[in-house]
Amino acid sequence: MKLNIPKPSISRICMVYHLLGELQEAGEIYASSTQIGETLGIGAHSIRKDISYLGDFGNTGARYNIAKLREHINNKLNMNKPRKACIVGLGRLGSAILNFKQFSKRGYNIVAGFDSNVNKLETLKTPIKLYPAYRISEIIRLEQIELAVLAVPSEAAQVSADRLLDGGIKGIVNFTPTIIKTERKDVFISNIDVVKEFRILSAMIDLSHHE
Amino acid sequence: MKLNIPKPSISRICMVYHLLGELQEAGEIYASSTQIGETLGIGAHSIRKDISYLGDFGNTGARYNIAKLREHINNKLNMNKPRKACIVGLGRLGSAILNFKQFSKRGYNIVAGFDSNVNKLETLKTPIKLYPAYRISEIIRLEQIELAVLAVPSEAAQVSADRLLDGGIKGIVNFTPTIIKTERKDVFISNIDVVKEFRILSAMIDLSHHE
Repeated sequence: MKLNIPKPSISRICMVYHLLGELQEAGEIYASSTQIGETLGIGAHSIRKDISYLGDFGNTGARYNIAKLREHINNKLNMNKPRKACIVGLGRLGSAILNFKQFSKRGYNIVAGFDSNVNKLETLKTPIKLYPAYRISEIIRLEQIELAVLAVPSEAAQVSADRLLDGGIKGIVNFTPTIIKTERKDVFISNIDVVKEFRILSAMIDLSHHE
Repeated sequence: MKLNIPKPSISRICMVYHLLGELQEAGEIYASSTQIGETLGIGAHSIRKDISYLGDFGNTGARYNIAKLREHINNKLNMNKPRKACIVGLGRLGSAILNFKQFSKRGYNIVAGFDSNVNKLETLKTPIKLYPAYRISEIIRLEQIELAVLAVPSEAAQVSADRLLDGGIKGIVNFTPTIIKTERKDVFISNIDVVKEFRILSAMIDLSHHE
């Protein structure tokens, strides 16, 4: 079955999936769309609409069975399919992310780290294989890596991204403030920028004062 | 003038503002909504609608004057108002963020770092003042800090957030995978989670294969 889901809905469904996991761990059995929406700061209507994109869930009452809804999302979006990922740029931020423990729990296998500084490759202590940056395309292709975190200095962002794209990467989480340019429509990029988040929060703080 | 702008629009306007700055630095004078939209992966119609929320810009042609649009956004959303911020949790990730150079350029002044480990406070080399975690509320209040980055271990997320909220924080960028619970409607929280981003990208990769 082909699903055609708008990107913001995919993003919200992933948040819902994540929250359902938390509720499940806390021993909850049911959750209403209102409750889910309030926790996530999203309207209950959006939650219901997003879930409807996944096809008929056969929900009969006002509440969702948490375990069943989670399984439904998982079946439709293949949440736990194992995927290979890499970290490009092993400065403070990149090496912090390299050591995140959540990845393997969620099915993401970090199989490579890259940096242009060879000294860094020799001194970093990690069980993950590290390579010089010029080997990015080769290793992506060889290892069939699908996902990358980009944590290089801003001026190296586009060059590094081009190497990832050459190797056939499918998704990039871009931690640099540079907007990556690509003609490819089949590669997905998420931009994460703390300064941008500060800006969004600042605008919301100011706008809420006007009310 | 009271502006009533939906949160996703605020987020997109901030992305547009950021891109305009890049285009300006690259020496560009004009940009169309199509061009902006394509670079950001957003429809041109959304771009125009988002900008219209800021009131009449008096755009007469098909293209925006980059400098003028940037100034317009800045006037309406007060993009460069200086604000105080802090980092809570000074592990690898928190201490990486503590040293980001982009903050001060954008008007964000990191005035405090917090950690529950007193050894860490003594060994970290930074010009920024560091405090033990139990002083969070006090320092937020005293320094009138508006924004915080939360980078503590997941199990400490809610406790740390409660301290921030007690101190009167207005916005939190939450790097923990824990969803922060609060009754306060005047506090804004952005959740940043690399694993969640991997999930979203994975879903988009899979869905694009179905097409």
